[in-house]
Amino acid sequence: MNVYAVIMAGGAGTRFWPASRSSRPKQLLALAADPNESLLAATVRRLDPLITKENVFIATGAHLSDASANVLPGVPKNQILAEPVPRNTAPCIGWATATIARKDPDAIVCVLPSDHFMANEDGFRKTVAAAIESAKKGYLTTIGIVPTRPETGYGYIEVGKKIDGDTFEVARFVEKPNRERAEEFLKGGKHLWNGGMFFFRAKDMIAEIDTYLPDLADGMRKIDDAARKGEEPKALAEVFPKLPSISIDNGVMEKAKKLAVVQGDFGWSDVGSWESAWELAKKDAAGNAAPAGSIVVEAKNNLVVDLTTGVKTGKNKAIALVGVSDLVVVETDDALLVIPRERAQDVRAAVDALKAAGKKELL
Amino acid sequence: MNVYAVIMAGGAGTRFWPASRSSRPKQLLALAADPNESLLAATVRRLDPLITKENVFIATGAHLSDASANVLPGVPKNQILAEPVPRNTAPCIGWATATIARKDPDAIVCVLPSDHFMANEDGFRKTVAAAIESAKKGYLTTIGIVPTRPETGYGYIEVGKKIDGDTFEVARFVEKPNRERAEEFLKGGKHLWNGGMFFFRAKDMIAEIDTYLPDLADGMRKIDDAARKGEEPKALAEVFPKLPSISIDNGVMEKAKKLAVVQGDFGWSDVGSWESAWELAKKDAAGNAAPAGSIVVEAKNNLVVDLTTGVKTGKNKAIALVGVSDLVVVETDDALLVIPRERAQDVRAAVDALKAAGKKELL
Repeated sequence: MNVYAVIMAGGAGTRFWPASRSSRPKQLLALAADPNESLLAATVRRLDPLITKENVFIATGAHLSDASANVLPGVPKNQILAEPVPRNTAPCIGWATATIARKDPDAIVCVLPSDHFMANEDGFRKTVAAAIESAKKGYLTTIGIVPTRPETGYGYIEVGKKIDGDTFEVARFVEKPNRERAEEFLKGGKHLWNGGMFFFRAKDMIAEIDTYLPDLADGMRKIDDAARKGEEPKALAEVFPKLPSISIDNGVMEKAKKLAVVQGDFGWSDVGSWESAWELAKKDAAGNAAPAGSIVVEAKNNLVVDLTTGVKTGKNKAIALVGVSDLVVVETDDALLVIPRERAQDVRAAVDALKAAGKKELL
Repeated sequence: MNVYAVIMAGGAGTRFWPASRSSRPKQLLALAADPNESLLAATVRRLDPLITKENVFIATGAHLSDASANVLPGVPKNQILAEPVPRNTAPCIGWATATIARKDPDAIVCVLPSDHFMANEDGFRKTVAAAIESAKKGYLTTIGIVPTRPETGYGYIEVGKKIDGDTFEVARFVEKPNRERAEEFLKGGKHLWNGGMFFFRAKDMIAEIDTYLPDLADGMRKIDDAARKGEEPKALAEVFPKLPSISIDNGVMEKAKKLAVVQGDFGWSDVGSWESAWELAKKDAAGNAAPAGSIVVEAKNNLVVDLTTGVKTGKNKAIALVGVSDLVVVETDDALLVIPRERAQDVRAAVDALKAAGKKELL
């Protein structure tokens, strides 16, 4: 049984404005430790040698397929699946799975987000390998991250009976908890963070979609039939926009019977804000993460991101921070953001203000 | 007797980096209330109708003469006096005075800094008019600003006997005082700030320089003789660099006998730092001075200056401040500065760091 990856690389993403834009969402940015590697490129690289580029599919939006291909040399162009419109994760995973099953009916499929970070890549691959083994046995398998704090922003997975090693049955999926429950989860040791990674035999997922999402199954079949006749683009444009917009979690995982979760602990981060990016970045002794050549005087714990292209001066900006602390400063050719690190979530407010002002070109 | 102005517009100025550069010093920047008028242009404009452009001379550096002319339409090009090298204020004023005296031996000369701000322009002109009257009587006359705080950064003038109206004899010039003396000066009511403005009959200044700065007088005569033969540029290049580098205060004013000071109170500011620029700028209800189109969310008392030329995007930057207070944020095409307002004096530290790094192109 061959193993394939489907990297979910859609999304608009406003949390990293002004670096992230509708045409350059989070996964195309180098937001983790290596300032020269996009999160998407890192996602594909770290699967190797478990899954090599020839077996990687990218599920993205039509407007992002070129930009995605640009950061992924070695991934075959025809494996970049461009959704004509975003329809949430169930149609995304359904279409990708059907596409893979068409060429390899016995395929094992690993669905992974494109915009997360793993500090321990060996540990990550070990967990993925276990998840693949579990999928081979017919389990729809997820990875559950061992919690390190009472996080209220993630869904949780309650583990059931042990199957083997770090692999457990899933007792239930739990929606984002309030603070009190999150504290209980952290103490209880039975709950893991849902990392949004899914592992399955293609035929198992197709069967589950048949059972729980018949409208999606119908649409998938139409697209698949057309693809067999070499007429996929037309069918895609016609059918995909009408597919039900539903997540794989709500549509399938929470209903399916044969579920497994592999417990993992590999320094996972969903890189959820500029604050996370600062935490992951390489910093100087004063806690500043800033491009080489920045002028930093009596400043500490700041994050500076410079995406200017130096069109006028032939080089990036000279960015000088004097006497400031705990700021995020992000520069692009057309925008500048200054915000305290602890208010990183409020980037949204700037984006909302731009929307209200009708400045689409900046979003 | 005709009245002429000599605007001293040299200087390098690092206090407004990255807006100010060796090729664009402070007086070429719009640092006061009107974001579209340079301090130099405002200096010339506010003299009108007391002194009109035809009678204005600009004493500047050779590398600044074009840039100065650009912001001063109406000032005759041949009245922009380009010093081949900076030699402090005595040679500057000496050369300009000789130049004016050559065409008008009875000229009254008003020497003014190019980079100050006056809130009450009518009041300023009234004070200047009084200073001109005083100069006509043969006094080397200055303007003394009524102090509003115990400032330790300025020289003071101790007033002597009243001559007429707001015009007094000068008891003495006083160097920058310590805090204690500055407090005394403020309470005592006998000391005024030395605003660096000088008013005199050309022939009186020439006579004083003859008396107190004979080397300068010799050099001036050589340049003047050459100018009468149409050979000024050669003489200037040869003689000017050898003139003694001394201020008019130390070289002449502190020694001359017939001195007057006109007391003035017209909302003067020397616009000494980004903090001053914020104080003078038009601000919104939350105390932010930022370009139109900036995105300001829960931010207060910030100064944002955008000198980018929008070469890539065709418009200036979208500058977003979210949740920050009391910052100065200055953007140019090649540099960005973020510094707390209260640390505005420490811009120097960034400039020093750039010098140490050999980045001349940014200075």
